[in-house]
Amino acid sequence: MRSETEADERLDRAFLALADPVRRGMVARLSRGPATVNELAEPFAISKQAVSKHIKVLEAAGLITRSRDAQRRPCHLEPAALEALTGWIDAQRLNTEDRFRRLDSVLETLKEKDQ
Amino acid sequence: MRSETEADERLDRAFLALADPVRRGMVARLSRGPATVNELAEPFAISKQAVSKHIKVLEAAGLITRSRDAQRRPCHLEPAALEALTGWIDAQRLNTEDRFRRLDSVLETLKEKDQ
Repeated sequence: MRSETEADERLDRAFLALADPVRRGMVARLSRGPATVNELAEPFAISKQAVSKHIKVLEAAGLITRSRDAQRRPCHLEPAALEALTGWIDAQRLNTEDRFRRLDSVLETLKEKDQ
Repeated sequence: MRSETEADERLDRAFLALADPVRRGMVARLSRGPATVNELAEPFAISKQAVSKHIKVLEAAGLITRSRDAQRRPCHLEPAALEALTGWIDAQRLNTEDRFRRLDSVLETLKEKDQ
């Protein structure tokens, strides 16, 4: 087994955190503004305990943070953590597109030689 | 529990598939061109069985497909499946950015009224 780097572990946690519709719903809600745990729980017919667990997973993944604001402790989205994910995915897509572009230019050259 | 839509299930599977460094390594390898199972297994010190399992997870998530080319059956990356993921993430980021932009313009208006 390859030993995992810290960056790898961060990606593991963040992708895993998003692999759940309730947690994605919470991220989508937070993208529209900070929210308390109760506000986040509202659209979901699940126990408060389950909601807390989902929030902890999102927090551990660095996708959300909670204010120290004693009473409400609202949750905030961390857009930089989302950016790290699109960064990784886009790198793979760019590789793929580059490869197709190179293939295209090879085909073009072959066609020109043919004429 | 909210019932999951098909699109939700696809996102679940794709995000979960990327929550593993070996599977991300395979996606990165395939972004540079198709590869056989043996070629994909090469950088990883894991059993052939484990490799097959990882490939099945990526296939079920729609991130890769395998040619019917009888002998080699190379794996191919499906860039559209990656696009669906960045699509979802970018929507959340855009919401967040819009919100900050609106906050900025409110602050600007307040500042102007103050002068």
